[in-house]
Amino acid sequence: MKLATLADGSRDGRLLLVSRDLSRAVEVADLAPTLQVAIEHWQRLEAGLQERYEALNRDEVREAMAFDPTKVMAPLPRAWQWLDGSCFLSHSELMQRAFNLEPIEGVEHTPLMYQGAGDDFLGPCDDILLPSEAHGIDFEGEFAVLVDEVPMGCTAEQAGTHIRLLLQVNDVSLRALAPREMRTGFGFVQAKSSSSFAPVAVTPDELGSAWRDARVHLPLNVHLNGEWFGHPHGGAMHFGFHELIAHAALTRRLSAGTLIGSGTVSNHDRSVGSACISERRAIEMIAQGAARTSFMHFGDSIRMEARCADGSPLFGAIAQRVRQGRSACA
Amino acid sequence: MKLATLADGSRDGRLLLVSRDLSRAVEVADLAPTLQVAIEHWQRLEAGLQERYEALNRDEVREAMAFDPTKVMAPLPRAWQWLDGSCFLSHSELMQRAFNLEPIEGVEHTPLMYQGAGDDFLGPCDDILLPSEAHGIDFEGEFAVLVDEVPMGCTAEQAGTHIRLLLQVNDVSLRALAPREMRTGFGFVQAKSSSSFAPVAVTPDELGSAWRDARVHLPLNVHLNGEWFGHPHGGAMHFGFHELIAHAALTRRLSAGTLIGSGTVSNHDRSVGSACISERRAIEMIAQGAARTSFMHFGDSIRMEARCADGSPLFGAIAQRVRQGRSACA
Repeated sequence: MKLATLADGSRDGRLLLVSRDLSRAVEVADLAPTLQVAIEHWQRLEAGLQERYEALNRDEVREAMAFDPTKVMAPLPRAWQWLDGSCFLSHSELMQRAFNLEPIEGVEHTPLMYQGAGDDFLGPCDDILLPSEAHGIDFEGEFAVLVDEVPMGCTAEQAGTHIRLLLQVNDVSLRALAPREMRTGFGFVQAKSSSSFAPVAVTPDELGSAWRDARVHLPLNVHLNGEWFGHPHGGAMHFGFHELIAHAALTRRLSAGTLIGSGTVSNHDRSVGSACISERRAIEMIAQGAARTSFMHFGDSIRMEARCADGSPLFGAIAQRVRQGRSACA
Repeated sequence: MKLATLADGSRDGRLLLVSRDLSRAVEVADLAPTLQVAIEHWQRLEAGLQERYEALNRDEVREAMAFDPTKVMAPLPRAWQWLDGSCFLSHSELMQRAFNLEPIEGVEHTPLMYQGAGDDFLGPCDDILLPSEAHGIDFEGEFAVLVDEVPMGCTAEQAGTHIRLLLQVNDVSLRALAPREMRTGFGFVQAKSSSSFAPVAVTPDELGSAWRDARVHLPLNVHLNGEWFGHPHGGAMHFGFHELIAHAALTRRLSAGTLIGSGTVSNHDRSVGSACISERRAIEMIAQGAARTSFMHFGDSIRMEARCADGSPLFGAIAQRVRQGRSACA
């Protein structure tokens, strides 16, 4: 099933069921007003939502309207918890080689993960408002999972049973601010502004065999200003999402509606390109001695979309522009 | 004014106004059902809450009941964003000396801050459930502020006008897990389990002259297993809360209900003791060559309370025990 959130001026929007082909949508306020409510009561609500979804796919829901991805928010417009991994090891290796960094110990055995800000996500077509190009504006193409409540101390196998929905993310990153924050050991605050999400969240069965080993086995197609930038494959994720969840739940329960990201999709095969500018710059530094691709400028556009193996739509597309944000305090 | 949240089995509880002396409380569902709703509509609701609060203090509210701090949750039981600073420089200096760490660059000019998990806070008398003593269970006594919406790019002066409520926190920390997470540069996930909060959140005017320079100029009294552990003074905070808010808002707006903590209260004067075990251990290592105080054991109790200068109650007390958590997955 596919779910989205209609923008209605409120912080949490209104829950929509969206047809598999992303052509139609219908509000489901009688079942759950928002995605947060749906994920908190998933076991009770799933069957009713599934039944309505199947009727929508058969075009038998009278109230259905055309689905417009420019009218939606992030599927979960704000999350009580947003955790993001960095689980594509080719990405870390490239960054280390390019910047002569010490390798981070144990990344093959223990996932890298930071606690992110989930209070204010962007929709798939929202402008990315930022104060300065000097901060090194970059995108990061990722996949993520939304879980229901995960008990403290879950095994990875048990954790996998709490994955309810899959999402596609642009984890907007400010590269000039990250090194100072990493050196403190305290992680990212200023370097990670609001993340953006593709129009619909999908249940794992929508991926068919492309969802296995708790990984999204599909390429993520990234275009910057209309030009191909990369199509790295999600199957190369070093840890599965079930292992990321168990890592996060070692010392606390995760409340229903916790989102966990994969980190930038990246492959060892250089021909597939990259899902962030920073990685392409690292490749250029290694191969040519200097970075040639600049970070984003105000007005630049970024598009990210993962489709099913047969080319049919899956999450819909992230299609955003970066613009200079004016502070209301200025 | 003083606000608390009655535990009713729901995730967000029910908002209470509490009398200044913490003897009486009354539900205010007609004004705001929860503290999150109140903070999102503060400007509209403040006058009505203040009027009811004054009547409660005069004992003129018929529906008032006795206030029982064992029946409340954290004032904000879950936060869309929880950011925690480390703004008492004597604490960092002691840790660096004891562990021979490199000083973190620029801590006098740029606040240390990590993004914490706000999805599942503990109430003032809730047990702290953790899986293992081997994780190095510690408390951290802190102050925090709750803000309404803060625009991106605020100056510190402007940021200060968004402080609506002050809170007292136990930022539960797992010391054996922190060094690995700090070395990754990604910050704390496993090393910071759920934080706990004193019974009531208070408006800054409740502190009188003890709230100035956006700092809490009061000692925080800490007792471990009924014995004095420390009473360091909040006025020694190197940055004011207004500066912490502006730091966090550099590249994004902060949504209403964002909580920002001070970090462990700590003073250069050793005679005042400490607000966390880790710091006392560092002092012992420097003075005596080895740490003598152990981290917490299951069954240990921790009490933290900051009172007004005249000894009257302010936030109420955090009074918790650490117990072994049994995983529902086990």
